[in-house]
Amino acid sequence: MKECIFCKIISGEIPSYKVYEDRETLAFLDINPVHEGHTLVIPKDHFENIYSIPPETLARLSLTTQKMAIAVKNAVEADGINIIMNNEKDAGQIVFHAHFHVIPRRHNDGLANWPQKPYEAGVASTLQEKIKHTLE
Amino acid sequence: MKECIFCKIISGEIPSYKVYEDRETLAFLDINPVHEGHTLVIPKDHFENIYSIPPETLARLSLTTQKMAIAVKNAVEADGINIIMNNEKDAGQIVFHAHFHVIPRRHNDGLANWPQKPYEAGVASTLQEKIKHTLE
Repeated sequence: MKECIFCKIISGEIPSYKVYEDRETLAFLDINPVHEGHTLVIPKDHFENIYSIPPETLARLSLTTQKMAIAVKNAVEADGINIIMNNEKDAGQIVFHAHFHVIPRRHNDGLANWPQKPYEAGVASTLQEKIKHTLE
Repeated sequence: MKECIFCKIISGEIPSYKVYEDRETLAFLDINPVHEGHTLVIPKDHFENIYSIPPETLARLSLTTQKMAIAVKNAVEADGINIIMNNEKDAGQIVFHAHFHVIPRRHNDGLANWPQKPYEAGVASTLQEKIKHTLE
């Protein structure tokens, strides 16, 4: 897509630290990493997010993401790896070309997961039915 | 695996709010959600994390995750969806049976992404070479 920064990285119009490439996917360093080695994995075709990416492309993307998770872990000797995809602005998506973050983690690096809390009585079963209904 | 809580959910030994199931994957509500509708997607076979999951299984898992991202978004009218997989304890993994979190988000819900900062000069290209080297 003409104005997409990731499409410009794919075409080479914008330089990047590419670490892996195949016919359908590309991986390169996030220039503003959470930790050193933080890598982004994208499809070469432009799709905005997980809602619109074709299943075959998503499957290929997940395999490159796995490959990069292992490579980044080994390269920086990470203590763990987070895989994150943010979909839509309100979920923290900044570039609207679907991408997985591969984020190496360090023991006691102080990065917190979001707080979680139990359901009030009856709410979970109502939601369960709602979600199942949308799949029918 | 005998002592795995997710394997017990798969077998039915432990109850859960299942929302989707096929031959290879299962999706159910996280009982301690970040937001209502927070769903976990798992392979029915036991694999600890993204490093060890067979590529075919990961591909199937990514497709169920996509299906659930769309279903959860529609069911709770989310403003965005995060897909997250934590690998290893130091990355926040609590149950050691690989799983994707599908987390619905709300506009201005106050959940922050982790801070990111640019590389010092020369560091990114060194890392690029290291990661490429591990892939050879």
